[in-house]
Amino acid sequence: MSGIDKFFKNLTPRERALFESGIKLGAIFHQFIGTPVSLFSVDSLERTIEECVLNQFFVSDVSVRIDKEKLRQRCEKHGYAMLSSEMLEVLVIVKVENVKVISRLKYIEDLDYPLMYVEGIVEI
Amino acid sequence: MSGIDKFFKNLTPRERALFESGIKLGAIFHQFIGTPVSLFSVDSLERTIEECVLNQFFVSDVSVRIDKEKLRQRCEKHGYAMLSSEMLEVLVIVKVENVKVISRLKYIEDLDYPLMYVEGIVEI
Amino acid sequence: MSGIDKFFKNLTPRERALFESGIKLGAIFHQFIGTPVSLFSVDSLERTIEECVLNQFFVSDVSVRIDKEKLRQRCEKHGYAMLSSEMLEVLVIVKVENVKVISRLKYIEDLDYPLMYVEGIVEI
Amino acid sequence: MSGIDKFFKNLTPRERALFESGIKLGAIFHQFIGTPVSLFSVDSLERTIEECVLNQFFVSDVSVRIDKEKLRQRCEKHGYAMLSSEMLEVLVIVKVENVKVISRLKYIEDLDYPLMYVEGIVEI
Repeated sequence: MSGIDKFFKNLTPRERALFESGIKLGAIFHQFIGTPVSLFSVDSLERTIEECVLNQFFVSDVSVRIDKEKLRQRCEKHGYAMLSSEMLEVLVIVKVENVKVISRLKYIEDLDYPLMYVEGIVEI
Repeated sequence: MSGIDKFFKNLTPRERALFESGIKLGAIFHQFIGTPVSLFSVDSLERTIEECVLNQFFVSDVSVRIDKEKLRQRCEKHGYAMLSSEMLEVLVIVKVENVKVISRLKYIEDLDYPLMYVEGIVEI
Repeated sequence: MSGIDKFFKNLTPRERALFESGIKLGAIFHQFIGTPVSLFSVDSLERTIEECVLNQFFVSDVSVRIDKEKLRQRCEKHGYAMLSSEMLEVLVIVKVENVKVISRLKYIEDLDYPLMYVEGIVEI
Repeated sequence: MSGIDKFFKNLTPRERALFESGIKLGAIFHQFIGTPVSLFSVDSLERTIEECVLNQFFVSDVSVRIDKEKLRQRCEKHGYAMLSSEMLEVLVIVKVENVKVISRLKYIEDLDYPLMYVEGIVEI
């Protein structure tokens, strides 16, 4: 990955970790929204999205949770639903050198919006 | 699903099975192309795409295969790749009443094209 | 496209037109759901989806309509929304030799489902 | 958007601009890769992706360029192609308060990788 690093000389590890965290959340949302999902396949979809994210640079941990109660309601009529922004919650930890950025994608009820935000930055 | 059936009175089971087969292949391609994948996560991605497809109406069987050799080559530099049309092969069997349509998405080397086509129609 | 045709010897023009119609609708849905859209950009998005579909084999006409009233409501809080299945309506006409298949993607309120169905088949 | 701002108290404008820049680039890539495109529809697709991005928070400017020469080659056989990472270049300018972050998605030949990186940060 050294060929890539030269593009990032202008950022501190902290800054790069923030930029990379945004990339991961934006990517997950726009790749997987619309995927057909049911109560039968939801666990497997969660694990697979996690593995997809773990493939990417700087991801040290990730947790994907699809809201089972909302999914159950959406599945009542037809047995399955399309993955929607209201159901999807993702926690990603990106580590660049000594900096960890913990960021989250979560549907915020009050805002009626799937928000991507930073929960914490840890320098080790 | 009876509410849905009234929209399909104008099609024979054979015709509906063909229409539904096209939907499944078009959906898989455009949902999952671009997904980050590695040799580590490829099996899990294959199984999860299969489960996603099985959720949908009329799917009686599905098999997803991502070409491991092409993936290995694409992963050499960076450890992972984006799922591309050259790598993805899908076999879907759709059953409507007494008709089974076997269709396939496969990258055809000679055509340089990810072709979706019908391999067979079986009336039982 | 002659190299492709040999894969379709087992289908009548009518059958192939049905299969291709399904492909187009499945593709549109899973490609564009989730796209950020506002009242400012909605017309341009509709035209561009139409042009994307017209690129594909056998498409003789297409019309994409995003429900402006639903979009307005979804945009109230944040100025834009993600394209969702409730908003999107598509009419596609696929022509294979002497057969035209008119198919539609439409969110059906009663079914709470974005249905893809065939409105008519015309043999000329 | 004030309801959203309280989630970002822990970031400086500079940090938030970096995080938001990553979101935009990750989103564009994973939303639009795979879109059917031809020389006929490419300009319209570029403009529409730009408008989609402009809808999102903090985007002050965006430029999308699809490589016409690569597209022409990919279109030779079948008249159209799927938008791929080799063809797509995006420049996004995100502005948070007095900070502008200029970031880019570009396929880097040497790396054989669609890189997302920060070209500059300007504090006004």
